[in-house]
Amino acid sequence: MPEQTTGPRPTLEAVAARAGVSRATASRVVNGGAGVRAPLVDKVRRAVEELGYVPNHAARSLVTRRNGAVAVIIAEPEFRVFSDPFFEQQVRGISRELTAHDAQLVLLWVEGPGDHDRIARYLGGGHVDGALAFSLHDDDRLPALIGRTRVPAVFGGRPAAGSGQGVPFVDADNRGGAREAVRHLVSLGCRTIAHIAGPRDQTSAVDRLHGYRDVLPGADPALLCQGDFTEESGARAMAGLLERRPDVDGVFVANDLMASGALRTLRERGVAVPGDVAVVGFDDMASVAPRTDPALTTVRQDIEGMGRLMVRLLMRLLDGTGGEAPASVVTPVTLVRRASA
Amino acid sequence: MPEQTTGPRPTLEAVAARAGVSRATASRVVNGGAGVRAPLVDKVRRAVEELGYVPNHAARSLVTRRNGAVAVIIAEPEFRVFSDPFFEQQVRGISRELTAHDAQLVLLWVEGPGDHDRIARYLGGGHVDGALAFSLHDDDRLPALIGRTRVPAVFGGRPAAGSGQGVPFVDADNRGGAREAVRHLVSLGCRTIAHIAGPRDQTSAVDRLHGYRDVLPGADPALLCQGDFTEESGARAMAGLLERRPDVDGVFVANDLMASGALRTLRERGVAVPGDVAVVGFDDMASVAPRTDPALTTVRQDIEGMGRLMVRLLMRLLDGTGGEAPASVVTPVTLVRRASA
Repeated sequence: MPEQTTGPRPTLEAVAARAGVSRATASRVVNGGAGVRAPLVDKVRRAVEELGYVPNHAARSLVTRRNGAVAVIIAEPEFRVFSDPFFEQQVRGISRELTAHDAQLVLLWVEGPGDHDRIARYLGGGHVDGALAFSLHDDDRLPALIGRTRVPAVFGGRPAAGSGQGVPFVDADNRGGAREAVRHLVSLGCRTIAHIAGPRDQTSAVDRLHGYRDVLPGADPALLCQGDFTEESGARAMAGLLERRPDVDGVFVANDLMASGALRTLRERGVAVPGDVAVVGFDDMASVAPRTDPALTTVRQDIEGMGRLMVRLLMRLLDGTGGEAPASVVTPVTLVRRASA
Repeated sequence: MPEQTTGPRPTLEAVAARAGVSRATASRVVNGGAGVRAPLVDKVRRAVEELGYVPNHAARSLVTRRNGAVAVIIAEPEFRVFSDPFFEQQVRGISRELTAHDAQLVLLWVEGPGDHDRIARYLGGGHVDGALAFSLHDDDRLPALIGRTRVPAVFGGRPAAGSGQGVPFVDADNRGGAREAVRHLVSLGCRTIAHIAGPRDQTSAVDRLHGYRDVLPGADPALLCQGDFTEESGARAMAGLLERRPDVDGVFVANDLMASGALRTLRERGVAVPGDVAVVGFDDMASVAPRTDPALTTVRQDIEGMGRLMVRLLMRLLDGTGGEAPASVVTPVTLVRRASA
């Protein structure tokens, strides 16, 4: 900050005079710049910086929110971004909340590790005020790269241990929700309860697996199947499970899409749900869970709300009012009972 | 360009010396800047500009491709962006071609007219080297706003008459394809051929309607139904059509998604396809046309290829080699015969 900070505080009039614009124009720029031509915005911002004008909250935002844009980075390839309704729902929450803050959402995704450097260059190029990144994987270089660019960031989902230090995240209570799902199957009288797990390199999937093991520590390893959060992988895992353990009478599936695939396999084999096998999913995705046949009992996480929360944490970081970075948030989940269990 | 252009051409060594960096660093910056810290990149770029260093293609790109990012703007709300496979396919083509040019894709969409100013501010803020915009509507302010920001742009689909002048576009031969579709229905012996049209404010839909009318200039207006390119609107339009003209024996539907909805209605009413009613769509979307029941005869446009072509035109604009802006391209379409007609 320049010398003026020790003298009398510069006025908005002084800013306007120095920039050679009207007071109204200077005021509009200080309050976001809507409707002011770019060269004038630049002049006023220069004058603000040169004079050290600090009127209120808006002037502080002028520095930290100068681009009016926030990058949303989904660490998945394009085909998953557009086919998994989880991402749509999270992006919807983020989009609405960013619009409320008059910030432009720019969406980026990661086709493969070859994209990392380019994304880091873009973030480091000063084109966005902040970044929201989700669907991170354990071996992801993204948290480290984002950290190095010093762009304020919030993660969706807890990053792997040892990465993303100091970056707040928003997560759901995955382990607690998984416990609740498995306990529900136990309470229905299921005796042979399997788990179709999500990718081993994502903390959300690992936490759900831990929740299953919390309730059933001695479960037969043959009851554990590996999926990748896609519907197809759920269908395949269920088929393998029926071969290995035809006596299975309950399945906790780590997300709704895979559960939808598992239900398809059960239907094709003529296995009655929930009569022969009860099924519980995770997510409660509006476009999936109520529409499966039978409708899916599942663990509801507020995906859209978590997206909104990520934006609010980021805005607190950008405004820097609290002194300390905002704390990470783990949101509660609830069991939603439908026909499948 | 500075005075040096008349003297001996400045060397890369001169650029390095002026910027106070090694020749290797200057070279890396001139060739894209990967792995070089931002302050050094700026120093080298300033030296390049001050000296008027023009080594080759790469130096020219340094000015026009300084952000390494291209905005892709879909003039549709988020729910359509994520649910209409057309957009996914076009974005896939764009994404692959941008990656080949080492440019970062940043995706923006338009929830409503309230977003226009914010998008224009972002584009005008110098954060991207160019913009690709598609699914434009007749009353869209986007073409004008993009024009005002002077960001080089290419449109997907022909903009409405009077907007987007001077901006090249990539379009499919919508009118020719529609003619071929309707002629195919005529050749099958259909006598009462209806059309389910797309939004009146999009040139692609209007062109397809014109193609239908070219072949059937005297068609009963009751055979014309209005849809909005969504599956649901196709199902509704077909239901209305069956009520008004139960004698209909052929339908040309303006896109595959609406055709899929129309087929659903016909199936539910027990109308045999193609026995009672033959159906032809438009797009040949991989995730739709071969999977409908019965599989859809449709007009194939190379959606992914059109996305790629948009990027190539933009890169030609950015490189500015040709002197003149590249011409717009109208790509050919072909009828793909399956079971529905």
